[in-house]
Amino acid sequence: MNSVVLNPTKFSNRTAQVDDAAIKPLPNSQKIYVQGSRPDIQVPMRKISQSDTPTSMGTEKNPPIYVYDTSGPYTDPAAKIDIRAGLPMLRAKWIDERGDSEILSNPASVYARKRLADPKLAEMRFNLKYHPRCGKAGANVTQMHYARLGIITPEMEYIAIRENQLCEEFTAQHHKFLNHQHPGNSFGLSRPQYITPEFVRDEVARGRGIIPSNINHPESEPMIIGRNFLVKINANIGNSTLGSSIQEEIEKMTWAIRWGGDTVMDLSTGKNIHETREWIIRNSPVPIGTVPIYQALEKVDGKAEDLTWEIYRDTLIEQAEQGVDYFTIHAGVRLAYVPMTAKRMTGIVSRGGAIMAKWCLAHHRESFLYTRFEEICEIMKAYDVSFSLGDGLRPGSIYDANDEAQFAELITLGELTQVAWKHDVQVMIEGPGHVPMHLIKENMDMQLKYCAEAPFYTLGPLTTDIAPGYDHITSAIGAAMIGWYGTAMLCYVTPKEHLGLPDKDDVKDGIITYKIAAHAADLAKGHPGAQTRDNALSKARFEFRWNDQFNLSLDPDKAKQFHDETLPQEGAKLAHFCSMCGPHFCSMKITQDVRNYADSLGVSGIEALKKGMEEKSIEFVNKGAEVYNKV
Amino acid sequence: MNSVVLNPTKFSNRTAQVDDAAIKPLPNSQKIYVQGSRPDIQVPMRKISQSDTPTSMGTEKNPPIYVYDTSGPYTDPAAKIDIRAGLPMLRAKWIDERGDSEILSNPASVYARKRLADPKLAEMRFNLKYHPRCGKAGANVTQMHYARLGIITPEMEYIAIRENQLCEEFTAQHHKFLNHQHPGNSFGLSRPQYITPEFVRDEVARGRGIIPSNINHPESEPMIIGRNFLVKINANIGNSTLGSSIQEEIEKMTWAIRWGGDTVMDLSTGKNIHETREWIIRNSPVPIGTVPIYQALEKVDGKAEDLTWEIYRDTLIEQAEQGVDYFTIHAGVRLAYVPMTAKRMTGIVSRGGAIMAKWCLAHHRESFLYTRFEEICEIMKAYDVSFSLGDGLRPGSIYDANDEAQFAELITLGELTQVAWKHDVQVMIEGPGHVPMHLIKENMDMQLKYCAEAPFYTLGPLTTDIAPGYDHITSAIGAAMIGWYGTAMLCYVTPKEHLGLPDKDDVKDGIITYKIAAHAADLAKGHPGAQTRDNALSKARFEFRWNDQFNLSLDPDKAKQFHDETLPQEGAKLAHFCSMCGPHFCSMKITQDVRNYADSLGVSGIEALKKGMEEKSIEFVNKGAEVYNKV
Repeated sequence: MNSVVLNPTKFSNRTAQVDDAAIKPLPNSQKIYVQGSRPDIQVPMRKISQSDTPTSMGTEKNPPIYVYDTSGPYTDPAAKIDIRAGLPMLRAKWIDERGDSEILSNPASVYARKRLADPKLAEMRFNLKYHPRCGKAGANVTQMHYARLGIITPEMEYIAIRENQLCEEFTAQHHKFLNHQHPGNSFGLSRPQYITPEFVRDEVARGRGIIPSNINHPESEPMIIGRNFLVKINANIGNSTLGSSIQEEIEKMTWAIRWGGDTVMDLSTGKNIHETREWIIRNSPVPIGTVPIYQALEKVDGKAEDLTWEIYRDTLIEQAEQGVDYFTIHAGVRLAYVPMTAKRMTGIVSRGGAIMAKWCLAHHRESFLYTRFEEICEIMKAYDVSFSLGDGLRPGSIYDANDEAQFAELITLGELTQVAWKHDVQVMIEGPGHVPMHLIKENMDMQLKYCAEAPFYTLGPLTTDIAPGYDHITSAIGAAMIGWYGTAMLCYVTPKEHLGLPDKDDVKDGIITYKIAAHAADLAKGHPGAQTRDNALSKARFEFRWNDQFNLSLDPDKAKQFHDETLPQEGAKLAHFCSMCGPHFCSMKITQDVRNYADSLGVSGIEALKKGMEEKSIEFVNKGAEVYNKV
Repeated sequence: MNSVVLNPTKFSNRTAQVDDAAIKPLPNSQKIYVQGSRPDIQVPMRKISQSDTPTSMGTEKNPPIYVYDTSGPYTDPAAKIDIRAGLPMLRAKWIDERGDSEILSNPASVYARKRLADPKLAEMRFNLKYHPRCGKAGANVTQMHYARLGIITPEMEYIAIRENQLCEEFTAQHHKFLNHQHPGNSFGLSRPQYITPEFVRDEVARGRGIIPSNINHPESEPMIIGRNFLVKINANIGNSTLGSSIQEEIEKMTWAIRWGGDTVMDLSTGKNIHETREWIIRNSPVPIGTVPIYQALEKVDGKAEDLTWEIYRDTLIEQAEQGVDYFTIHAGVRLAYVPMTAKRMTGIVSRGGAIMAKWCLAHHRESFLYTRFEEICEIMKAYDVSFSLGDGLRPGSIYDANDEAQFAELITLGELTQVAWKHDVQVMIEGPGHVPMHLIKENMDMQLKYCAEAPFYTLGPLTTDIAPGYDHITSAIGAAMIGWYGTAMLCYVTPKEHLGLPDKDDVKDGIITYKIAAHAADLAKGHPGAQTRDNALSKARFEFRWNDQFNLSLDPDKAKQFHDETLPQEGAKLAHFCSMCGPHFCSMKITQDVRNYADSLGVSGIEALKKGMEEKSIEFVNKGAEVYNKV
């Protein structure tokens, strides 16, 4: 539906626009905001309205369903969307009020100043109207720091409301069926029935949850990553030297969040990385992550051995000043671990890991990411950038899963977590990769053991290597399982994995697939409220409320399209049958007879029946063993 | 690619043809046959050839990979394909030699005779050249019966060879990497390293494996369903009153087996069910399953309460005489269980279950499937039709998973298994459905406990209800898990599930998705040889042998298509880079440097490095930290 433009017209500040498809509200959905304790805490949710169920005694109301909404202002018809101006600065006042940061007259990054001074870039540069912010000398502006001081920030309250996914209206009208939840058998889940701001604070203070929220990304809507919260998903976007434009990357970002991306990583390795990132951040309501070593490598023309701490440091500052919320840093790739990968089937497949391994070999020294880790922490805490400690030695094939190199690095990531926490810097840990099902749990167990419950953030894992073109599926299996075991965020894999750069369709396929995995994990963990949407959709399906079934689904467009391929007539949306069985043959119709029968028996009758007693007076046929009795 | 014809020209015997796309051999693949102990045991496999790896010392050979091949003669260029004549009768001699069956001059089924006598059907009728076969009076022609007598049938030997997935040539050339297997942690797997004919016999004798092989389906290539064997998948096809023709159903069948369907169920509920089935069976190299109650219901114009044992019995005989290999029979839907479903979210969603529930209510009697079960066994053993004991009360939503009705029925299915085994009739047990991840294992545990290890055959299960349009994925998660836990066959779910009838594209999507789930399960179970293909594909990927990577994948067409979207030039198939990172930036290139380095260190050097000792003499940069050293 949304085709890729591989050779778009040249991008310019004047022609930049948002894709119409990304700003249309989803069907029968309304953007609502739940009010917090102060007027400017307005937590967005998507309210999906349902139609009534006809019954023999009139109609039964079906309550609206409220779902977590990552799409930001784009799906709010009241919002004025202008990507050349960027999104409103939701958090600016909160950040300012804390009084621990200051506005810089100029970027501290040398590279950023150079780009800013280049007149050739004027045409494509985002027209930034404010200067970067930085923590005052000696100040620590991280959410973890506030949390440990006992401060509940507006961000934390926002998150508490957001995670509960319900509001008063909903609770009041709770339908009998919708209340039922299967008790999940979570692995170490320890959360209350309702998330409170204090609970959020406590989880952040102990490092079990992180709130990626750079003070230079005030446009972001606060969210949390931690295993006592809803499982999150990340979407990777970014250009390569072979293609894609700024316009396309903005479209991928807005498309990713429309379908449920909780964070977006910009992994650009092509042209104009700095300018591309600025456009993405200014227009993103979700946290943005990057892998700074990619850009640092571009600055030394792709020669890993020419990388220096100074270039890398300036890149961190450049990106922190733009507002990147978390950095993937492969500080666990130590020199001694590199030879452990020599006997692997697929060596080092992490790009960041490979770059650092090459650097270590070239200089025969410990990586500067490791030796300068405390200096990196100093930068992180001046902007509140969270660590995503990269798994540079993750397995790239089933053959290499759970090997010595992988776990050696994991143990080092655990040590670095303690260093970061000493600085009150937020940390999550990246995980594999390619892992067969029976070795997945060991990954989670080891991560919990060595990384002291810092949130785990995994790529898949892919559970087999034999299906390129379908690796969103090979990995969704592993992702759902590891999410159930306790992984806090799942990095999506698109159908193009291993084969090419994802286009917009691939981004959507990856997102929906990972929403499935994350939601399946939430169900299995017994996350309160998670099953509400399943119950509502199943009830709609059972009652042939076709439009409600579509609207409650993760992808209403596709559900409707598939249905309409066989039964396009609008009347079929009201029909009490579907194309699978046709009008004369429907198990769902027959079930209604069963209910009528059970009602006629009553509880004691059912018990009697179970005991094998025979009733003489059954009049089912005489009553007309027919359907639609309910209507 | 293969579009659906929803309003095809009228099907006729003269115009029937096989789809070209279904008979093209897969790229770089050759159909080979492994010779058994007698000349007519010729077991098909697909041999995928690989290119060489260039090295500094010349080239390294990569062995061909042999994969299980369900596609039958269609992918054999030497075979003459004529669907109007049907496939060769591979098993006819074996069946005949046993001397326990006889050829009937006319079908015993009244309905079959009526159809045969109807001149209006001549045009669409398959031109059958032989008469149906039936066990002689008092004879039992089931594979289980032979197995229990200690007889190893040609079918059993065929299966033993087929399950090993290797031949001598392969074993001899085994590449160092390809040998490595992760030890799976199977749940109760108890099989030898290599499958022997005697092992097959023993598994069939004890009911832990079944060989669906009606004596009237001599065209079928023997296969086994059991948890000590490769996990199998089933594809559902079939028309409905709203559409599809015989031609389309044949195309779906050939398409399904091309991509890996191990069995096919014809679930037709529309027009000309009898004739459609004949065409499918005569042209199918895989076992065909049906749900006879569907056709029986058509015979009473859709009125469940009008069903009788006599009509059903004639339908069983009709289908058994045509060659259906397994029947889904919902004999566990007992009257007393029906009211247990009244409080469900989605009642009874199994069509067969709903029909029988309605019948039970209408007559207030125990279902004839239950009361006549021994009579049904008599029919099954006269043709060797296997039971697939249907889960008529399976849950249709997460809400209903693992409830009282579901497990009550399962216990009854266990009792019926014992009855069938008393008659030496083969049995598998059908399972759910919709189940959240944390409740999946209980399904497997209960099934093993109550059904005495008879093979489990599950539909998914779907792990969430919120993604219509993507239920191949919601269910692949559950299918992979339950396959790992011990389910022997997975019934596919297509993207159209809950929304419409699958077309050919949906069939392929469903098949590939389920091949992924089944293979992921085989890996996790530690099935010997399963990882060979993963290892070969990963090695090809790492070495930039792009065409080998495509050819080894489950869907070479799609893998190549995705790659070529960004890099269509033929030269890019030989390039040592890909579109994700571009030519200057590749983690796989860097890994080669690591290998060279490790080689230069030697084992003792690596140990020394690990101990933190510093080497002075590293000359990596001077050697030119460059790539392509290997070439």
